[in-house]
Amino acid sequence: MIGRLNHVAIAVDSVEKASAVYRGALGAKVSEPETVAEHGVTVVFVELPNTKIELLEPYGENSPIAGFVAKNPAGGIHHVCYEVDDILAARDQLKASGARVLGDGEPRIGAHGKPVLFLHPKDFCGTLVELEQA
Amino acid sequence: MIGRLNHVAIAVDSVEKASAVYRGALGAKVSEPETVAEHGVTVVFVELPNTKIELLEPYGENSPIAGFVAKNPAGGIHHVCYEVDDILAARDQLKASGARVLGDGEPRIGAHGKPVLFLHPKDFCGTLVELEQA
Repeated sequence: MIGRLNHVAIAVDSVEKASAVYRGALGAKVSEPETVAEHGVTVVFVELPNTKIELLEPYGENSPIAGFVAKNPAGGIHHVCYEVDDILAARDQLKASGARVLGDGEPRIGAHGKPVLFLHPKDFCGTLVELEQA
Repeated sequence: MIGRLNHVAIAVDSVEKASAVYRGALGAKVSEPETVAEHGVTVVFVELPNTKIELLEPYGENSPIAGFVAKNPAGGIHHVCYEVDDILAARDQLKASGARVLGDGEPRIGAHGKPVLFLHPKDFCGTLVELEQA
């Protein structure tokens, strides 16, 4: 079912500082910061030849990553995102297997403008998994 | 400097259970378990079209991931591995930038038979980073 690794998301307290690490010490190509207010994040993309790393900074009052960054002030890997062809078929197959889909189980439009779902870390090796319809 | 994302490593208490999750619920291609005694892990590879996920289970008395799994019994993302062309040049550049290389700073031969180094999470957005000479 799952296809490409779309991205690894790393939550940080400052995308400016994190960009300097990836652009400077690691010599990677990093995009300019972009705030996605409705998702409560400011994001930069580290462009690797085969996938990307998303560096996420909390934005606004109700950022979904604010708690994570408060608990991990140095930052940390927040989730991985796998691509699927058909997110509703993927959801139904996952639910049938007994896995928990977060929220109300309906895909939302994610930060890339595509339908996404998140899966319960406890059912996936302690890892928050995002599925994105590619 | 950094090139491809070689893999994301997820530490788990059982690669057998973790394989069932990735092969079953997520419908991915997963290799058979392989024990790498000198690295203190049993590993399976989840083969994605653009990269791989390594599921690591502690092996033996002095497994380097035993502490992590004890603290995260459901499992968790342990590190990311970026490829570099020249690991000694990468190390020297990183040290010159003030970043900390773990251990004695000399590359070791990693689980894929290639030279690797690990970088200090505090200097890299709270993320344990492995560099592998590709």
